[in-house]
Amino acid sequence: MPRYALRIEYDGHPFAGWQRQDGPTSVQQTLEEALRALQPDMPSIAAAGRTDAGVHATGQVAHADMAKDWDAFRLSEAVNWHLKPAPVAVTACAQVDNDWHARFSALERRYTFRIIARRAPLALDVGQAWRVIGPLDLQAMREGAAHLVGQHDFTTFRASICQAKSPVKTMDEIALEERPYPGGQDIRIHLRARSFLHNQVRSIAGTLERVGAGSWTPDRVRTALAARDRAACGPVSPPDGLCLTGVEYPEDPFIR
Amino acid sequence: MPRYALRIEYDGHPFAGWQRQDGPTSVQQTLEEALRALQPDMPSIAAAGRTDAGVHATGQVAHADMAKDWDAFRLSEAVNWHLKPAPVAVTACAQVDNDWHARFSALERRYTFRIIARRAPLALDVGQAWRVIGPLDLQAMREGAAHLVGQHDFTTFRASICQAKSPVKTMDEIALEERPYPGGQDIRIHLRARSFLHNQVRSIAGTLERVGAGSWTPDRVRTALAARDRAACGPVSPPDGLCLTGVEYPEDPFIR
Repeated sequence: MPRYALRIEYDGHPFAGWQRQDGPTSVQQTLEEALRALQPDMPSIAAAGRTDAGVHATGQVAHADMAKDWDAFRLSEAVNWHLKPAPVAVTACAQVDNDWHARFSALERRYTFRIIARRAPLALDVGQAWRVIGPLDLQAMREGAAHLVGQHDFTTFRASICQAKSPVKTMDEIALEERPYPGGQDIRIHLRARSFLHNQVRSIAGTLERVGAGSWTPDRVRTALAARDRAACGPVSPPDGLCLTGVEYPEDPFIR
Repeated sequence: MPRYALRIEYDGHPFAGWQRQDGPTSVQQTLEEALRALQPDMPSIAAAGRTDAGVHATGQVAHADMAKDWDAFRLSEAVNWHLKPAPVAVTACAQVDNDWHARFSALERRYTFRIIARRAPLALDVGQAWRVIGPLDLQAMREGAAHLVGQHDFTTFRASICQAKSPVKTMDEIALEERPYPGGQDIRIHLRARSFLHNQVRSIAGTLERVGAGSWTPDRVRTALAARDRAACGPVSPPDGLCLTGVEYPEDPFIR
């Protein structure tokens, strides 16, 4: 059975998250239905990041095992055809080795969390950013974020229902960027790590927002981390601003 | 009657355009209804750019005459309250002189037209860009655009129903920018002019897309312009990618 890697973009808003479940529609189910329109007995697909309800992706990666050989480009075109009108699109597709795994072969995940700080409600980026009143002090947010880089026990910053065996993770980078935005600030928090805990990015984003707003000192992020106590975390941000932007593999399967 | 300048952001998708009309809802009507919730006899408002159905704005400017003095910030908050849940927001507000006019005092309008060129349909920027198959040759598009800069008779590039007295306009700048986009290209055409003809930007964007795709030579833009004939224009683009990003005045009313 030839295996295909798929790079996937989606608007998380209408979905119950990546993972197939009883009840509301998931991205996984939507994509599997499109693939099964081509091959009814296709097995379940695996993805690099199990994004929550409302979380977006521009660079999710999954793999699918097909019964017959497909030209990768034709496969992506056929899947996109059957995905319509769902806000999910395959933006790259490549055949990979049978031992290549979208989740287990991944070396790094990249997320971006977008906060728009302004008084006026959003008319254009509704659902694509977390709107807060602001203003936010970017320098203070950077100082707070610096405490989270490196290997730490992230118990404070993970959901109580998180199923990871260990709360110890290595955050490779948290880079903050500010772009001009009408009447306010457009702040992007870019995070890189081999893997993330459940709700880790939203817990960090909600905490850094408190730092930016001045109700937390940057140093309180260090204290909260050291507490290893979920109750020490800032408020968890809504999913709107979160986007899985990319997944790194030993070799990029999409450029060969 | 004190006069207030309002900077307005909107998602053009649900609207019949800026201008109030019989039938479908316009942005003007939506904004006037929010203002009349504060002051029932408020006169009609005037705007710098009469955007078409489906066209967005991040920097539209209008003015409104109120019966009583308002603190500008409180006025914007009150209008935004009454605008909910329409995708329209006041992002800046300032009191201006009574002879200041959003349309007639304007020295320059700025529009951006966004084209995303890729095979896969859009999942995230639906309605916010014109998606074409591509790829597009940016350098060829720049060469084509260069023919349109300066003072010209733009008869080729205006709607047959355009009501402007003269087809002669001065295009101050057409700058093309390319940003990375998953699986394709994100091309932004930035245009600056004192004023624009009806459908001028969409006629130019549709024509430059043909140049980028290789079905027009850059020089054909020059020939089409010189023809002063609507039939010589390339296809008019859809409104999705178009956004009024700003209006220039002798002094910026919003920073005082």
